[in-house]
Amino acid sequence: MALLTRIRGPRDLDRLTPDELRELAAEIRTFLISSVARTGGHLGPNLGVVELTIALHRVFDSPADRILWDTGHQSYVHKLLTGRQDFSRLRSSGGLSGYPSRAESEHDLIENSHASTVLGWADGLAKANQLLGRDQHVVAVTGDGALTGGMAWEAMNNIAAAKDRPLVIVVNDNERSYSPTIGGLASHLATLRTTDGYERFLTRGKEFLNRTPVVGKPLHDALHGAKKGLKDIIAPQGMFEDLGLKYVGPIDGHDVEALESAFQRAKRFGGPVIVHCITEKGRGYRPAREDEADQFHAVGVIHPDTGLPVAASGADWTSVFGEEILRIGREREDVVAITAAMLRPVGLKDFAETFPDRVYDVGIAEQHGAVSAAGLAASGLHPVFAVYATFLNRAFDQLLMDVALHRLGVTFVLDRAGITGPDGASHHGMWDMSILQCVPGLRLAAPRDAEQLRLQLREAVEVDDAPTVVRYSKGAVGPSVAAVGTEGGMDVLREPGTDRPDVLLVSVGALATNCLEAAEMLEQQGITTTVVDPRWVLPVDEALPGLAERHRLVVTVEDNSRAGGVGSAIAQALRDADVDVPLRDYGIPRRFLDHASRKELLEELGLTGPGLARQITGVVARLDGRLDPAAAALGSD
Amino acid sequence: MALLTRIRGPRDLDRLTPDELRELAAEIRTFLISSVARTGGHLGPNLGVVELTIALHRVFDSPADRILWDTGHQSYVHKLLTGRQDFSRLRSSGGLSGYPSRAESEHDLIENSHASTVLGWADGLAKANQLLGRDQHVVAVTGDGALTGGMAWEAMNNIAAAKDRPLVIVVNDNERSYSPTIGGLASHLATLRTTDGYERFLTRGKEFLNRTPVVGKPLHDALHGAKKGLKDIIAPQGMFEDLGLKYVGPIDGHDVEALESAFQRAKRFGGPVIVHCITEKGRGYRPAREDEADQFHAVGVIHPDTGLPVAASGADWTSVFGEEILRIGREREDVVAITAAMLRPVGLKDFAETFPDRVYDVGIAEQHGAVSAAGLAASGLHPVFAVYATFLNRAFDQLLMDVALHRLGVTFVLDRAGITGPDGASHHGMWDMSILQCVPGLRLAAPRDAEQLRLQLREAVEVDDAPTVVRYSKGAVGPSVAAVGTEGGMDVLREPGTDRPDVLLVSVGALATNCLEAAEMLEQQGITTTVVDPRWVLPVDEALPGLAERHRLVVTVEDNSRAGGVGSAIAQALRDADVDVPLRDYGIPRRFLDHASRKELLEELGLTGPGLARQITGVVARLDGRLDPAAAALGSD
Repeated sequence: MALLTRIRGPRDLDRLTPDELRELAAEIRTFLISSVARTGGHLGPNLGVVELTIALHRVFDSPADRILWDTGHQSYVHKLLTGRQDFSRLRSSGGLSGYPSRAESEHDLIENSHASTVLGWADGLAKANQLLGRDQHVVAVTGDGALTGGMAWEAMNNIAAAKDRPLVIVVNDNERSYSPTIGGLASHLATLRTTDGYERFLTRGKEFLNRTPVVGKPLHDALHGAKKGLKDIIAPQGMFEDLGLKYVGPIDGHDVEALESAFQRAKRFGGPVIVHCITEKGRGYRPAREDEADQFHAVGVIHPDTGLPVAASGADWTSVFGEEILRIGREREDVVAITAAMLRPVGLKDFAETFPDRVYDVGIAEQHGAVSAAGLAASGLHPVFAVYATFLNRAFDQLLMDVALHRLGVTFVLDRAGITGPDGASHHGMWDMSILQCVPGLRLAAPRDAEQLRLQLREAVEVDDAPTVVRYSKGAVGPSVAAVGTEGGMDVLREPGTDRPDVLLVSVGALATNCLEAAEMLEQQGITTTVVDPRWVLPVDEALPGLAERHRLVVTVEDNSRAGGVGSAIAQALRDADVDVPLRDYGIPRRFLDHASRKELLEELGLTGPGLARQITGVVARLDGRLDPAAAALGSD
Repeated sequence: MALLTRIRGPRDLDRLTPDELRELAAEIRTFLISSVARTGGHLGPNLGVVELTIALHRVFDSPADRILWDTGHQSYVHKLLTGRQDFSRLRSSGGLSGYPSRAESEHDLIENSHASTVLGWADGLAKANQLLGRDQHVVAVTGDGALTGGMAWEAMNNIAAAKDRPLVIVVNDNERSYSPTIGGLASHLATLRTTDGYERFLTRGKEFLNRTPVVGKPLHDALHGAKKGLKDIIAPQGMFEDLGLKYVGPIDGHDVEALESAFQRAKRFGGPVIVHCITEKGRGYRPAREDEADQFHAVGVIHPDTGLPVAASGADWTSVFGEEILRIGREREDVVAITAAMLRPVGLKDFAETFPDRVYDVGIAEQHGAVSAAGLAASGLHPVFAVYATFLNRAFDQLLMDVALHRLGVTFVLDRAGITGPDGASHHGMWDMSILQCVPGLRLAAPRDAEQLRLQLREAVEVDDAPTVVRYSKGAVGPSVAAVGTEGGMDVLREPGTDRPDVLLVSVGALATNCLEAAEMLEQQGITTTVVDPRWVLPVDEALPGLAERHRLVVTVEDNSRAGGVGSAIAQALRDADVDVPLRDYGIPRRFLDHASRKELLEELGLTGPGLARQITGVVARLDGRLDPAAAALGSD
């Protein structure tokens, strides 16, 4: 690491020779493989952008010039070149974030790691540069996968409208979103690659670049006329050219000199320009290149030589869903599955292999996932859209207006709901139960264990006149938690052993074990406690107010934003029933959560068994004080 | 109306001669102008699609074939041809909806009138037809404006991926969204029109169509090769052609025979195909054609000959905002405005005329409006994004992840918030306060009158480290409501005249007058009442719990979904402060609201002064009964 350790900032790259740059790239790959193998993280994408990142930092002057990273998990190399080489606690509490972070460096701007945003940001920055007369460059690095998102199109349409607003779009084309990029974009490129072979393709690309640095003008001239003009309304290629969004490419994304040459041209152009770079995800790491499915997109702790996981993981929520949806698919021909470019991560691989005609990968396009589900459901099918909880935010309007308003049976399966951990603020799935509460007719289940997930998924796909949601955590699924009784549709997990118990503890999803632990601790202090799992948390079970009325205090516990969450819904249901038993609701406060382990975050938020017991004990003491005039008088001193 | 009244359903069109079809089109225009002049409604768009709708219903067999309307306000002609000719109570309670409605007709499917959805629905329906082996046609009618929305791009990319899935996309191109379509799409078409003149353009289009019915193949053959293929990754024109999304056009959208011929070709094609029709918004109605700004997109009650409003409207919320943002713009150079294709309807016309460089129309692209605002704000500007409340749903993820997570000062001005009235379920702005509650750092103001709107808008644009929201109603702004005192940041609108009053009435926004009326009625029954307007409803004012504690009952009143609304937020703030005073929250229940006047809907929901007084009296009586053991015993019989 002789070269890498000498790079304290981007300007240290300026004096390196071409040979040294190649050596630096090799050192970075070695560093990434050994370091990410120890901590886990996004490996494949970063191995693909080593040369691209070096070239960008040589040509542009960050942070005065702004280099923006779409889906920021491809920013590890950028971190290494901007003074951040301690990867020992990557994605752990106190260590480097797995994404750009303004707290870490002035070279970072966008912390949001939801895809397809970078062109919109770049448009805003470029508009501001123009308005304020600033002579700074804006460089947006995006991927071919991210271009399948509607935001990218909206941004392109705006960027292309202003010929005189400089902006460099770098398309890092590796044929992939998470899994291979789908749709028209990808098929076309695939055809071309099949025809020519990858190496010839790259070679020809370079020749072509040398011959015609800025493509578009000749083609435009050849085609100009009414015919082409009209077609452009639905086919923006000509439009971008006509409006001045120039194209440079294709560039071999692993040739630093070729990249620098292209970036220099783009920098001088004076208007919006696209630089199209062909890269290999997982470049230089055999286990990643040989992994056809996702080329080590993100890994846990692995052995660096073999790429094999160091610790075999147990059953996780995703695989339980994957098994059950496959079984349901065998029983019901009308069940179809939808994914937004995440077939394997959401557990649909086996379903897709068994029923290839009944699975739709829509690209990084959650809006389309939801609205096309409405069309499928209106035709009598039952779509199951499996998506990370945090990405459902993108499809809220479609879930509300296209699915719920039309009373259609679509099941949304939200993986990685609640506190997820190392991916940080933009990946915690802590919003769904808040934004979905107002959706008319919607039913939401939060299974507490694998058995409940199987059961509730089956209950969800039975509903044919409303959206249903099944949300569960990331990672390993815990042991089964048995019910000891029922109240209405709710499972009673613990009876208090007295007719007039103190506390009704309402547990949401996988927090059941924490609630049961808290109940034991409360009981030891003489606070008698019932624990229920509502199973379907929205709408609130009709039996809940009656049950609440038999307790002195109701406590709700959820792995979601407290604001507008399940606790709020339950509190409202109690008010509506004129049940004014005091209630306290525990969950995630109204703030963003940094990266840390799920365990650490649950502790910090007081959502562990002991944390809950401590807080509830305090509330009970204050209520006692209020009821006891002597204590109240004492308290008011 | 000799012909129109004989049309009971689409098949009655089959036997009409070409001359009769022209006569029918003229009758429909006469009917629309006189009828919509009486009721108000969407006039310009429907005058533009008369021939297009006739031709579609002659070529396709609805409802077996599915004709889908994007932004359903262009469905009036469709209604007239499918058995719905009583327009006397259009958009009024009990009358026809202003949009497609499944309750009205089996010919309708999509009730959602948010733009850009129809291609996604069509993709879902086409997938289902393929999977189920159904021989039915899917026809999606969309506009050039709707194509600027990201959903359209996501859908196109999916539709183009399947060569063998029949689907007809009709692009109704009138150069407009609401106002002229912006961005690359529009500029290019505009260039072409300027060059050639509109009439020659249409003529040539027709000639071209006769010569080359399905465009694409020759162009494709001429261009085929690596160069074009690579460019297609960011330029889908060639991609669509290569993948089989054929193009037919341009067609004169007012020539029924030409339209039928094109639709027949598209119907026979067997794969996805685009038919591009050029229409005139407001066709055949001089006042509309002469209205450059929006060609009578939607009108109130007007005189049919002149197109002038019958009743002059007073000051409305929108114009108050328009005046104040202009003043602010004069004082602060850093304030810029954003609209999503609604410059005039949201009140930005004067600002745009005064500061043309400081206003950005992003197209029907709310996601881009929000994310580009983040980029502008990160550059030190203060963007004000003015948008209808219901359309903000599309930008939730961007507001959360791009603006709030990055702690940027962006002001969202939500027009048409709360109950709007005649536009029905998809236009009520009743979701914003529910979905925004969980956004960290967000501040939300609901001004009660014009003066407060001016003040709070100014307070909002002063915040530079968090998103701010100012939301107000549709239509006329009521008289000023003076404060009689303050509590923390809240305005006290009414003092109870006793130290230990019964009810604290917390009023949100324009419902202040209803709350004051309710308070008077309560007082007459001996129920002493304080009325406060929190002004900033999110986050909850710190003084509220202390004030609540001095009352026996807290009542919240809001013009928003009750689920996760302001009442829920206040209830949570009280719980967090250990204030367990009973609370009741009034607002919109968890269901969609049909079209009706705002007044009718407020009455139905019990949100008028008398309605609130009646409900609160009941709660107070029940609380009294609970406290009085004799009454309680009586009640439990």
